[in-house]
Parts: sequence; structure tokens; C-alpha cells
Amino acid sequence: MAMKTSRDIRNESRFMVLRAVYAGGTVTRAQVATETGLSPATVATLVGELVEEGVLREAGRISSQGGRPTSTFQANPQRGRLLAIDVAETYVRLDVYDLALARLDQEQVELAPGAQTIASVGEVIGGALTALRRREALADRDILFTGASLPGQVDTARGVDVFAPNWGWRDVPVVDVLEEAVGGRVRVDNPLMALATGELWFGAGRRFRDFIAVNLGTGVGAGIILDGQLLRGRGNSAGEWGHTTLVWQGRACRCGRQGCIESYVGVEGMRRTLEEIRSDHPLLEVVHHRAFIEQLMRAEAAGDAAAREAVQRTGDHLAAGLGNLINLLNPEHVSVLGWITRYAGTDLRERVRTRIQQECLPGPGSGVSLEFTETAGESVSLGMAVLALEGFLEQVGLPSPSSLPAPPAIDRTEHRAAWAVPGAPTPSRGPR
Amino acid sequence: MAMKTSRDIRNESRFMVLRAVYAGGTVTRAQVATETGLSPATVATLVGELVEEGVLREAGRISSQGGRPTSTFQANPQRGRLLAIDVAETYVRLDVYDLALARLDQEQVELAPGAQTIASVGEVIGGALTALRRREALADRDILFTGASLPGQVDTARGVDVFAPNWGWRDVPVVDVLEEAVGGRVRVDNPLMALATGELWFGAGRRFRDFIAVNLGTGVGAGIILDGQLLRGRGNSAGEWGHTTLVWQGRACRCGRQGCIESYVGVEGMRRTLEEIRSDHPLLEVVHHRAFIEQLMRAEAAGDAAAREAVQRTGDHLAAGLGNLINLLNPEHVSVLGWITRYAGTDLRERVRTRIQQECLPGPGSGVSLEFTETAGESVSLGMAVLALEGFLEQVGLPSPSSLPAPPAIDRTEHRAAWAVPGAPTPSRGPR
Ligand SMILES: [Zn+2]
Ligand SMILES: [Zn+2]
Repeated sequence: MAMKTSRDIRNESRFMVLRAVYAGGTVTRAQVATETGLSPATVATLVGELVEEGVLREAGRISSQGGRPTSTFQANPQRGRLLAIDVAETYVRLDVYDLALARLDQEQVELAPGAQTIASVGEVIGGALTALRRREALADRDILFTGASLPGQVDTARGVDVFAPNWGWRDVPVVDVLEEAVGGRVRVDNPLMALATGELWFGAGRRFRDFIAVNLGTGVGAGIILDGQLLRGRGNSAGEWGHTTLVWQGRACRCGRQGCIESYVGVEGMRRTLEEIRSDHPLLEVVHHRAFIEQLMRAEAAGDAAAREAVQRTGDHLAAGLGNLINLLNPEHVSVLGWITRYAGTDLRERVRTRIQQECLPGPGSGVSLEFTETAGESVSLGMAVLALEGFLEQVGLPSPSSLPAPPAIDRTEHRAAWAVPGAPTPSRGPR
Repeated sequence: MAMKTSRDIRNESRFMVLRAVYAGGTVTRAQVATETGLSPATVATLVGELVEEGVLREAGRISSQGGRPTSTFQANPQRGRLLAIDVAETYVRLDVYDLALARLDQEQVELAPGAQTIASVGEVIGGALTALRRREALADRDILFTGASLPGQVDTARGVDVFAPNWGWRDVPVVDVLEEAVGGRVRVDNPLMALATGELWFGAGRRFRDFIAVNLGTGVGAGIILDGQLLRGRGNSAGEWGHTTLVWQGRACRCGRQGCIESYVGVEGMRRTLEEIRSDHPLLEVVHHRAFIEQLMRAEAAGDAAAREAVQRTGDHLAAGLGNLINLLNPEHVSVLGWITRYAGTDLRERVRTRIQQECLPGPGSGVSLEFTETAGESVSLGMAVLALEGFLEQVGLPSPSSLPAPPAIDRTEHRAAWAVPGAPTPSRGPR
């Protein structure tokens, strides 16, 4: 029955202030107070602390007629860098962000098949970081905190990857290895939590307190945000909506259950639906996930009857699955995100929109809004940058610096040496 | 993005203190502090306030060797009464509780078919209250607050029954009518929220912060408790697990959807399962819900093959539905409650226990506990008494009594007159 401590509340208030700043770009204290509902005195204190820590900086002053000029504030891009790492099934990507959460640089490395041990992932990250250190975005800059997304079931509190079946991982101490590779504090999480955090800070979270961020991709899941907080569950695995039964005794799912939503709505699910409709459809030859979805949607738009039927069945399954979430959780809003939304044409959306009302009870169904959001594909990375920012803020927000755990003993010689290599080529900057 | 106010936190802390007192019976301040995690100073202040308001009273003193004697506290049964009203589909029941949440008296009135208008419900309640006022438990006692459970979708904040399809109710202003009938403040809610609140205070809530209270009855639903708080959702209709699809294109559900969990796991669902197995089974003649379940379980225990098959299929559906909840919400614990559990023999439980692990992902499935709880049938009433207590505490916890909304103007003459009737028979006391 433990309650929120005053430190929890203080951290939560800081995040609220920062979310208001990031939402507004350049804001006054009064705007932050209005946006957050915090008292002007609390906002003044928190903004003062954040300025002192260099997280925010004064941006200018607004003069009002007859009154005193009012300061405006913004996130301080000079304060240091945040590193976001996306360890995906076939590649590792590192993104460098400033403290205003603008992306400055990027390095991506394909993982060789069979290289999915934590040691080789650590080595790949170390190498990519060495490359980044040579370039402008990171040269002579501190990495304040790192957020890393890892596949499978990640226990954030323990810093362990509990279960990543495709890689044969069980209870792998990922934080230890990554902190050694990065040379600083690392927070780990899974991609669903990262996506939902991004949506909380920069998407629906700006307008809603209780909403669901559904991710459609190779896998599918649902980030559940209640009262402005991401629901993590007992072991950080809340949100496995993709592995809830929608079709009794239906398709075998890769999780071992039958009839899971993912086996109908995920990429492989759509492929199996198309196969059921027409087992010799030429698109079934397309192995690559994104190419398959892109071509399926194109075929559907071009009038391919089987593709059209597959898209509509997928829409029916998706609508029922979304209806389940809405009836169970009675949210204000549902955002449908993930890379599939980029390729999902209007027909999938229209089908879902047409069907969703009949899948909802009158109460939960009335007034809930539903939005398909085309995300730029950097959502996981941005979410991990936010989680890194949260980690950094919690660190500097500790009551006294002396009570901080000692930083891990890291040998940075290798990186330092790398920076100093004379005549090393300067790779071109990644996309901003 | 509004945060919890200090008043919310104060209310929450009061509830925590009271829950610790109700759990312990007679407790010291130190025990409350240990149990709640609140600081000893906060506990001392809150206990002091609750004693001043007459909610708690000093129960005695414990002397420790050499030290000062320590006071013990308990809920004060003398402080006044709480009234719990259960407006069910066929009856209305009123229960009188003291502030220690001991049930003192009861009055139940069957509702005549066609009498399900709010006006006639109000009249029935007024009449039952008149009867209760004549008896010891309520005579010369104040009703501090009333909690009323109503069918359908209840908007607690607006005091309105939004939608009760079986009664043809839409946006019925139930609080206004009930406050007039009772002559005091009334909080309304639906039975699922009442059950879950009872479980939060007196059941799994004593051991878990994140759990689900599944209700199996004529209807089925899931009270979701996260971080020690009942999830209500945007319109107080969270928890409609019974109306989530488990069987794609399955049975028509009374909600208008297809394949809802309720149409397999609720009473009518079990009846339809039995009918599918053996359409001429004699038990299908049993119309009354409780009698049907009781006799089905008895037949199953006696070796009736069709009954056994029906129980096992129900167990399979229930296990999958529980697996959905566990995968989606990753709770610490699931309690299965409701009147069906009283009749559900070990075979249903065993079937669920056997199947549940394969319905859960490795993460959420490991360590979650599952418990079938035989409730005494008074769970809704007890939950509404707790909600009445919460309403009372919030009322006395307001910053200043002068800022309270004016109590509704009620003519209590009728009740007073009823008490004064000379020679009126004194009905026998209800069950304690
Ligand atoms: Zn699955
Ligand atoms: Zn239904």
C-alpha cells in the first residue's frame, strides 16, 4: 500500500513542466502554469531548478504594456546530449539528440545473422558510438543519459532482458553491458513502451490523460496511458494486446497461443489472410515485411479483389480488437501508430471507422476518438530519447548528489583515442 | 494534464489509514505507518483528524516495558450509519452499516414487473427506509452517507444513469431522486465498481496494488485496480471485459456484438454451451439463474457427461479470457468473484488452473496469482457501504465546512411521522 513519495510527485511535476515546454517551444511561466494546472509558485520553483541544472534556458523577455517584462523559457540544446539506441531484430541504430529533443546525428549497423548475443550487440554499439564521437553532434559533448530499446520482455527496474525468444535470451543483464559500451547510465525498455512514451510527450498525450497508443507493425501491441502515466504492469510487460485471443481456436500464433490478434492484424497475419483468400497470389512471394505491406496496399488501390478482401478482413479484425480495448478500458482516445500506418491506405482506415461503432458498447463508444497517425518511423528512437531524458532528470533530481550511486567505472580510453585519430574521415551527417 | 491536488492526496491518505484500521481491527499509529508507508507524523495528524471527526476512536492503551503507553484505535461504530442500496433488476435491498462497516439491518423489496421507473424505485426505497427507521439499527441515528448501486452504465460524477437497456433508462437523474427518497447525500455507482471496491478494501486489496477483480454472475465484468485505485475510465464504464470478443463471429451477445466473453462464461452462456452439447438436456428447463448453475454443478459432480463437458468448455473460455486480461494488463493478481463462484465446483476451477498458464505469455504469466473467492453475496452491498464511507470522508475532509454545497432541501416529516406511529409493529431484525 505504498503511496507516491514527495520525490515521485516532484519528478512527475518536472515532467509536466518539461512536456509543457516541449509542447510550446518557447513559453512563459504563466503559460506552463495554465497548461499543467500546477500553481504559479510551484512552476516558478521548478523552472528555476531546471534553469539552474541547465535543462531550460531563458529565451528572451516579453514586455507587456505598463507591466514588468516576462521571461520566456525553452529547452537548452547546449546542455549535453541524449543517446537513443534501438536494438532491433536485424539492426542496431544510435540516434543523438540534444536536450531540446532535436535529432542531430544517426548511425545504423546491420546485425549479421547469428550475431544476436548481448556481447556482440555491445560491440556493435561501441563501434557505432566511436563513429558518432568523431562527428560534430557528439564531439566534445557529454552524453547525459542513454535510452535503449531492446526486443522481447525487458524488466526496466532490474535492467534485464527477461525473455527474447527469437534471440534465445533469458535474463540477460543488458544494462551492465550497455553501460560499459556507452560509458554512462543507460535505461532499457521495450519498443512498445518507447512508442507510447513518444506519443505521451508529443502526440495524443498533449490532449488526453487516458488513451491507448496501438502499435501496428510486424508485432502489434497497445501502450496504455492512464492518468497521464504509462501503464507498465508488474514486470513491465503490460500492453500485450497483440497476444489476446480474438478468434477462438484460430490461427497458431508465434507466442504459442491460438487466435491472437497479432496473428490476424500483424504483417504475418495479413499475409495469412491473403493466403486464405487466394493461395497462389503473387504477393505471397514478397518476403520483406515492409515491401509486402506496401505492395498489398498498392494492389488493393489498383482494384485487386483478393488484396481488397484481405485489407477489409484485416480492418474487421482490427476494429474488433480496438473495440475490446475501448470496452475494457473506457479511454478518451485511441491512437493507431506504427510503420504499417504509413502504408495503410484509406480503405483500411475507412473499414475500421465503419466497423468500430458496432464493436463498442454505447457508453465507452460515445465520445472516444480514434486517430491513425503516420509516424515518421523514428518513434521508437524519440521515445527512448524521452526515457533517457526522464532518467537524466531523475538523476539530477535526487535529493543530494552525494546520495547518487557511484557511476560505473568505465575505461573511456578507447573512445578518446578514437576521437584523436588524425585524418580520420568525417562521415556525412545523418538526417536531422 | 491536471495533477493530483493536495486534497486528492489527503483524501487518498485518509483512505489508506482507514483501510489499515479496517484490516487490523484495533491498531496503533505505528502499525498504521508500517502498513501504509506513510510517515509517523502524517499518520499522527490523520488519525488525530479522524478521531476528532468521530470516525475513529481510541480503543485502549498498550503499555510497553519502561516506555510510555501507546494508544490503540478502531473505527467508531457510534458515529452514525451508512446506508447501502442495491437496486437490482428484480429487487431493491437496503443495508444499514455502522462506521466500522458491520452490517446491522436489512430490508429487501421485490420490484413488481413494470415498476422499473426511477420514480417507483424512489418510492420503494422511501418505504423500505421508513421500515428501517422504526427498528433499532437506524432509530435516532443519522445516515451519514448513502451508496446506491444501479444497473446499467452509471455516471458517478454526473449522478446520472446513462444507459440501462433492460429498463429503457437513458440519462435518468438517479441521484436527485434517491437523495430525495433518502433525505441525504447519495453516491451512485454500478455493481461492478461496488464489487471491486469491496475487494480493494477487504479482499485482494490488502495484499496487492495492481490486481483484477473478475465478477462472474448473470453478467460478467472485470474491476481493474491499478496502483491501489479503481480504474473507472472516461465515463465510469471501464471493466466491460464481458463485452470483449473472444470468439470471432461467435454467439450473438445481448449487447449486440458477436462472440463476447459474457455469451460463453455468463449464466446464459453456460446454458447455451450445454444446449450445444445436448439440446434435450433436462437442466435446460431450469429458468432461474442460480438454480440452473447450482444444478449444473451438481449434475457435473454426479457424473453427467454433458454437464461435465459444459463445465470444461466454460473453464476453457474463462481461462482464455483471464489470459487476455493478464497479457494486456500484467497484474500481480486476479480474484475471481461473484455468486457463480459459490456454486462452481472444483472442476471448473481445476480446468481454469490447468489451462491458464498456456494462455499467458511467459512474462505476465510467471508470478501472477489467481484466486477463486466464494463471496457471501453481500459484496455489492459492502462495496456500496465503502463508497458511502468514501463520500462521507470526502465531505468532512473538505477544506472548510462553509464551502460545502448546501444539502438538498428534504422534507423529513414523513419519516419522522412514521417513527412516531404508536403501536406500530416492530419488524424482526434482519440478518447481521
Ligand atoms: Zn500470440
Ligand atoms: Zn457483449
